[in-house]
Amino acid sequence: NKEPSKMQWYEFLSKSQVEQIHETSMGIMAKVGIEFRYNPALEVLKKGGARVDGERVFFPARLVEEQIRKAPAEFTLYARNSDFDVVIGGNHMALVPGYGAAFVTDLDIGRREGSLKDFENFVKLTDASPYQDICSGVVIEPTDVPPDIRHAQMIYTAMKYSAKPFMGSAMGVQGARDSIQMASILFGSQDQLSQKPRMISILCSLTPLVYDERMLGAIMEYARAGQPQLISSLGIAGATSPVTLAGTLAVQNAEVLAGIVLTQLIRGGTPVVFAGASSSVDMHTGALSIGSPEMTLNTAATAQMARFYGLPVRSGGAVCDAKSPDAQASYESMMSLLATRFCGIHFVLHSAGILESYNCMSYEKFIIDDEMCGMVKRLKRGYEVSPETLAFDIIKEVGSGGHFLDKDHTFDHFRTEFYQPQLSNRDDYVSWQEKGSPVSMTTANKKYKDILRTCETPELPADVDRDLLRFIEKLT
Amino acid sequence: NKEPSKMQWYEFLSKSQVEQIHETSMGIMAKVGIEFRYNPALEVLKKGGARVDGERVFFPARLVEEQIRKAPAEFTLYARNSDFDVVIGGNHMALVPGYGAAFVTDLDIGRREGSLKDFENFVKLTDASPYQDICSGVVIEPTDVPPDIRHAQMIYTAMKYSAKPFMGSAMGVQGARDSIQMASILFGSQDQLSQKPRMISILCSLTPLVYDERMLGAIMEYARAGQPQLISSLGIAGATSPVTLAGTLAVQNAEVLAGIVLTQLIRGGTPVVFAGASSSVDMHTGALSIGSPEMTLNTAATAQMARFYGLPVRSGGAVCDAKSPDAQASYESMMSLLATRFCGIHFVLHSAGILESYNCMSYEKFIIDDEMCGMVKRLKRGYEVSPETLAFDIIKEVGSGGHFLDKDHTFDHFRTEFYQPQLSNRDDYVSWQEKGSPVSMTTANKKYKDILRTCETPELPADVDRDLLRFIEKLT
Repeated sequence: NKEPSKMQWYEFLSKSQVEQIHETSMGIMAKVGIEFRYNPALEVLKKGGARVDGERVFFPARLVEEQIRKAPAEFTLYARNSDFDVVIGGNHMALVPGYGAAFVTDLDIGRREGSLKDFENFVKLTDASPYQDICSGVVIEPTDVPPDIRHAQMIYTAMKYSAKPFMGSAMGVQGARDSIQMASILFGSQDQLSQKPRMISILCSLTPLVYDERMLGAIMEYARAGQPQLISSLGIAGATSPVTLAGTLAVQNAEVLAGIVLTQLIRGGTPVVFAGASSSVDMHTGALSIGSPEMTLNTAATAQMARFYGLPVRSGGAVCDAKSPDAQASYESMMSLLATRFCGIHFVLHSAGILESYNCMSYEKFIIDDEMCGMVKRLKRGYEVSPETLAFDIIKEVGSGGHFLDKDHTFDHFRTEFYQPQLSNRDDYVSWQEKGSPVSMTTANKKYKDILRTCETPELPADVDRDLLRFIEKLT
Repeated sequence: NKEPSKMQWYEFLSKSQVEQIHETSMGIMAKVGIEFRYNPALEVLKKGGARVDGERVFFPARLVEEQIRKAPAEFTLYARNSDFDVVIGGNHMALVPGYGAAFVTDLDIGRREGSLKDFENFVKLTDASPYQDICSGVVIEPTDVPPDIRHAQMIYTAMKYSAKPFMGSAMGVQGARDSIQMASILFGSQDQLSQKPRMISILCSLTPLVYDERMLGAIMEYARAGQPQLISSLGIAGATSPVTLAGTLAVQNAEVLAGIVLTQLIRGGTPVVFAGASSSVDMHTGALSIGSPEMTLNTAATAQMARFYGLPVRSGGAVCDAKSPDAQASYESMMSLLATRFCGIHFVLHSAGILESYNCMSYEKFIIDDEMCGMVKRLKRGYEVSPETLAFDIIKEVGSGGHFLDKDHTFDHFRTEFYQPQLSNRDDYVSWQEKGSPVSMTTANKKYKDILRTCETPELPADVDRDLLRFIEKLT
């Protein structure tokens, strides 16, 4: 009676609409072209069969289709502790906290620039969470670390305080090389690394239709080393891409495919994630809105395009435009996060902590979002249908008007069947009032400090620790 | 190029799992039986072909299948103002605010028992909302109105302050008869009512496996009058139904089908909605939890069962266990509300205002949830894929590295393409701070008072108004 799950994802585009978007993207790639501002990339693309005119690259549809086919539909990211290995693709779902925020905030100190201590704290919170799968590469920008070693310091901190997989630096050729070398110190030779990928990085186009030197340098280094990459595009509909979401999707799609073609020309079979995070501009402020329903529509559509190409997909996240972890922060974040599951997204970046349209990480929101992640992972698990769970005999025994509270069946199953909240309050009004009427924000504030006070981080072998620190020292 | 939308809903149960649940429900109906505590219902069921033993009714599978087939897959609820007619079924989605709360709360006064003035206010807020489709029958319990006329007073208030469809009373035979008579005063004869249904009511089983006299009386009255009904079951997994969600679904399904069989035996073709709102018990407090992921799993599964039977379906809502419109209230509510769309729910009760597991209506949460409803309805609309929206020519014109902000195409489309938030703040941090750092709760408090101060309610013809008041007077 245990049948393997055959999910049917939410899809609002018809097959022919998906094909129309694909055809438009092929037209953009073949006739408008995409700028690659990095000579080594131009050479690879030219040799691979693209037409190159200055920095502009025109892709024949056949080239795109041939190269895309080489990328795997599913792959594994190996952790220091194999309990934390992450499969990306299929019915799996990898969650990774916020990435790239310049600011950090909490109830006690308020909003300020991020520091290395904050970075370390968020690595510890990620490690302690039962729901986050991968340490974010730049969970906040630690502005107190000198720029020339910042990327290495972040990787070291992730390695030191967590045994979960981590993310490589996106800071050009050098950032990628340093990431790969540091991974080799921990995990062995680059050859071993390419056989068992140890980190994943996010490399982004510059919408519309540009890849810059920094991103291309990193893409090429990681592809050569066989390390997985999120090839990502973020169009701002109405600003950097067409106001119409179909047009924005066509642009996003063309950019992501172009980047993936480059990776596969360098090393066929390099694991890549088809990553689209496009959203809309707010017409009143002119700024990117990531709490908008348009972002969620794009998440659903991006998932459909990735399935069309047979690639793992990244989109969505617990993202919002709110400035405080209030109701808005939560309804925007839950919309975007829950959509990832209903639409079949495999890799969810920004799954905890983000405020202010990516500009700020909140300690309290990290805890609040982590609860949402737990709920979404409970949904992912679905439930078993079997004679034991259909429980006909118990239903017959209880009959009409009875209750199930004291049945063995109830005690046997409630732990696996029911999600146990870490933050949500389920008291009645009077009990809640007696506890001081705690709202989510204050409960989350206490909880993040409890975790940081009590969490145990994994041991990093002393020689590895020493070699990593020496490596960083040499960079300055 | 405008192809009709062919939605694919999120489904986690396989076809054979749906069939196993159906078979278990058929087993419950045929072998365990369901108690009907009302003689007239027992007579109808016996005459219809069920085996009746005391108050227990056993349903042969064939009887169930034959009767279920008579109910329509889609029907229209007609409003006083035909702009507000609501189609229930297909790709449509009807939203209805919270139902049944004993308490009401807002920032200014705090939590107290509901009054008729509160009821009137919520009718006005429902009428003013562009997203709510139907006035809730018992948006709050107006405890300052004498019990013998309370149901009539609520219907009158809904009729007087809104031209949207409303809900009939669930208070037994008398409540249903009074609802039908009041609708006849407004809309003409009962014959006309049955041709153009004007109200919808919610009638619930008592899980496990009981229907009481009050509910059965109303079900039978409404069925005779051809007025639509939500035939609803709410199992509390682990308390009133099996702890396993598959077993709870089987019980819910059996109860709903049994109620629908009764409606169709009385009047074949009576519009019904297959309504399941089961959720889990919280093992720490012993209380119903409606903010749990288990409730959302049940929403998805209920939608699958309803599609299996070809019936319109109700489940989910903006529901939560939170005591205040905080982050928890919003993440729970958005999870449950968004799931309704991704899973293909047609009728969403409790779509605005609910706190405390149905016990309290919050003015501020009504406004917050109404924003969520707007976002979900924007998602429902999806987007058009056509040469105009794919925008190849504009993409070509802008090329690489340009922008779309000043294009006519942007100005032509942004109003329809982008959702315009009513509550969400999209300012940057500094602008937000300059405005006093407003959180959702304070913005919503201002907004609900603004709406109540400025809203214009439709005219009720003077003679109708007089006749309705006379009708209520006679009840005392």
